[in-house]
Amino acid sequence: MDKLREHVERNKDRWLEELIELLKIPSISNDAERAGDMSRCAGRVQEMLSEIGMEAEVVPTGGHPIVYGERLKAPGRPTVLVYGHYDVQPPDPLDQWRHGPFEPTMEGEYLVARGSSDDKGQFHALLKGIETAIAVGGELPVNVKVLIEGEEEIGSPSLQPFIHEQRKRLACDAVLIADCSQFGIDMPAITYGLKGLVYLELIVRGPGKDLHSGSYGGSVANPANVLARMIAACQEPFGKVGIPGFYDDVRPLEAWEREEFARLPFDEEAFVKETGSPRAFGEEGYTTLERKWARPTFDVNGLVGGFTGKGAKTVLPAEARAKISMRLVPDQDPVKISRQARSFLEEIAPDTVQIEILDHHGARPVIVSREGKAVKAAVAAIERGFGRPPLFIREGGSIPVVNTFGEELGTDCLLLGLGLPDDNTHSPNERFRIVDYYRGMVAMAALLEELAR
Amino acid sequence: MDKLREHVERNKDRWLEELIELLKIPSISNDAERAGDMSRCAGRVQEMLSEIGMEAEVVPTGGHPIVYGERLKAPGRPTVLVYGHYDVQPPDPLDQWRHGPFEPTMEGEYLVARGSSDDKGQFHALLKGIETAIAVGGELPVNVKVLIEGEEEIGSPSLQPFIHEQRKRLACDAVLIADCSQFGIDMPAITYGLKGLVYLELIVRGPGKDLHSGSYGGSVANPANVLARMIAACQEPFGKVGIPGFYDDVRPLEAWEREEFARLPFDEEAFVKETGSPRAFGEEGYTTLERKWARPTFDVNGLVGGFTGKGAKTVLPAEARAKISMRLVPDQDPVKISRQARSFLEEIAPDTVQIEILDHHGARPVIVSREGKAVKAAVAAIERGFGRPPLFIREGGSIPVVNTFGEELGTDCLLLGLGLPDDNTHSPNERFRIVDYYRGMVAMAALLEELAR
Repeated sequence: MDKLREHVERNKDRWLEELIELLKIPSISNDAERAGDMSRCAGRVQEMLSEIGMEAEVVPTGGHPIVYGERLKAPGRPTVLVYGHYDVQPPDPLDQWRHGPFEPTMEGEYLVARGSSDDKGQFHALLKGIETAIAVGGELPVNVKVLIEGEEEIGSPSLQPFIHEQRKRLACDAVLIADCSQFGIDMPAITYGLKGLVYLELIVRGPGKDLHSGSYGGSVANPANVLARMIAACQEPFGKVGIPGFYDDVRPLEAWEREEFARLPFDEEAFVKETGSPRAFGEEGYTTLERKWARPTFDVNGLVGGFTGKGAKTVLPAEARAKISMRLVPDQDPVKISRQARSFLEEIAPDTVQIEILDHHGARPVIVSREGKAVKAAVAAIERGFGRPPLFIREGGSIPVVNTFGEELGTDCLLLGLGLPDDNTHSPNERFRIVDYYRGMVAMAALLEELAR
Repeated sequence: MDKLREHVERNKDRWLEELIELLKIPSISNDAERAGDMSRCAGRVQEMLSEIGMEAEVVPTGGHPIVYGERLKAPGRPTVLVYGHYDVQPPDPLDQWRHGPFEPTMEGEYLVARGSSDDKGQFHALLKGIETAIAVGGELPVNVKVLIEGEEEIGSPSLQPFIHEQRKRLACDAVLIADCSQFGIDMPAITYGLKGLVYLELIVRGPGKDLHSGSYGGSVANPANVLARMIAACQEPFGKVGIPGFYDDVRPLEAWEREEFARLPFDEEAFVKETGSPRAFGEEGYTTLERKWARPTFDVNGLVGGFTGKGAKTVLPAEARAKISMRLVPDQDPVKISRQARSFLEEIAPDTVQIEILDHHGARPVIVSREGKAVKAAVAAIERGFGRPPLFIREGGSIPVVNTFGEELGTDCLLLGLGLPDDNTHSPNERFRIVDYYRGMVAMAALLEELAR
């Protein structure tokens, strides 16, 4: 039996306990009242790094702290920078959880808790992989740096300045991120493409306060009516986005890539069933996988305005708001798309209302070459950890930090995923399959060995 | 000097004291803790009816009691039913009142207190008008029935069953309601038209739960995107409603009515300024007063779906909802309009989502002929009470009880208003102009005389 696997097997219960303790901390980065929990969580992560023999510190930022650690005991060998995040998504709607989001509970082969898959469970597996590599090999075969931030779910505002400032210290040959997912159960994968993101909030304001819709309806513009029309204008029939210029820089899918997507064991029926939607829907002329991974989208993420309680209240709302995200593909530029969207919205807004557009955050789309040394090492390591080679897949999500690492350190990112596509990462009852948590540790330890070859 | 006015003049201070005592009772119908105050208020109103020589009783209901009284001493003469309500709106926000909402205070020519205008002050003036008619004439010149309910501000749930059950006892030639308002200071009015109402809630459901908009965006339909398109489809350019058949039964404004609206001293600039909106907006081809009073509307009263907190969350929402009200004008039928709206929404809903439509409530639009005997009597009576004839105006709001009286008793309602449009009836510092309180008494006594002619 592989020594790495044996070491993991001997320590697994203790490590699971450690993960459970970490998941109990409600480290919700977008909730100002959780600042204390955020600090506590950062402190705990720093201790974990120290416990596996890394020089580690909690670095204060303008926002939530960053935890950084390093163990540089392999002169002349490559350096890998491991990235993760200890913050989690807000848990609402709370009433849809089967138990408290911060009361980790085993349900069959899954550990259920907010953050279990995204990302505490995943980065914890990488840390235990590092610990395993040290324990089995006596020392790390490569130099390892670890950076765990606390603002991933709110757009990582403090990370870019930190990486920029510390770019010499963070220099490395590869960045490893385990914040993606496998293609399916027992189908480990390397993600070579990510979508980019533009996230806007559109606020439409009309009257100075909510008015009686009987006395004022039809006399002044209703911001909720206007908002709906504006959002509708951003959508064309057949699933296309209606913002002028939106498709200008979209790199068409190549024939070989479409063939490769088509060969993947993707069960569309199961995928749709899992979402609970009546059927698939997207841009005409593309398969679901193509839409999901390689075609840009326009989604309203949230809508609110006027009376939202039970029953009826006849108000003409003072304002209505929509949160809108656009997922981008190579070679769309988030700055350009944001500008185009803003101009379009400003152009179509009637002068009977006032609008405001907030820019929440953005990210460039990413494509990683499959020919790099790190990718090849990862293929071998995954085969050792999971018993089969990885599939090459893309992601509909965005990982803005991948852009930052590319720009600041000139390094490609290796995007792995220990979780599964149906881990409910931003939904109630988030979960993480525990067998993959352990396989991930073995794969991580193996990766460090493979990178040293 | 008119004998009616003389009688009012002699008793005014005593009656104002009586009104002030009534206003001190916090008869807030939507507050379960005020049940005792509600009973006390009903009891006080019953005493007032008895004191002016009516046979009166407090009628228990499933909710708050109804007070009913009658004095039928004019055989062969017409019967008028006077309607009012003793319940009031909740007084919050309390911190915006200049003094306690239930501590009536004179401020210049206004009495400031919750309920002063809506509706205690108004129905009290009618009762004192009845008292005046008896005192001056020795007996009432017509038969009078009085119905004062305690649930107007919560949708009158007990009233319709009561009227239905007691329809023989309540039979009358005219119903008099003083719960509207004058057109402006020293501009008494008769409201001869009310809008009807259809209130629907549209729920669009897609995935079984909120999904990550990166992983699923572009693969399944987004209910918030769909909701916006559906709402947009209900609106045509230039302020028209886009539901097929919506205008079929709309009675066009006649030339004489448009001319009359145009002659009213309506200050559009002040009206728009008061709303806080950048400018007026409504159906093209109509003035603001025409839109407000006589053209049907489609208004989103509330919108909600997905993430509505601060900042950004990239979810593809499981559902999105809109509360939608349509204000109707003669001869639109709320049942037919509701059916048309429902069919249209069902027709345009894509099969990528499921929709549900809730029907909250409806009301028929009302137009009262100006040629009726009661209206003519009211014109003469108002001229006697206010020193000038009334304007004829319409209302954008609905008064559901008007439909109930029409359907159950087959009687038109005479809609008067002693208050002013800026009486803050549902806001802090509600007020009632005292000179109109006294003028209203004279007009009421005069109305009883005029009805007897």
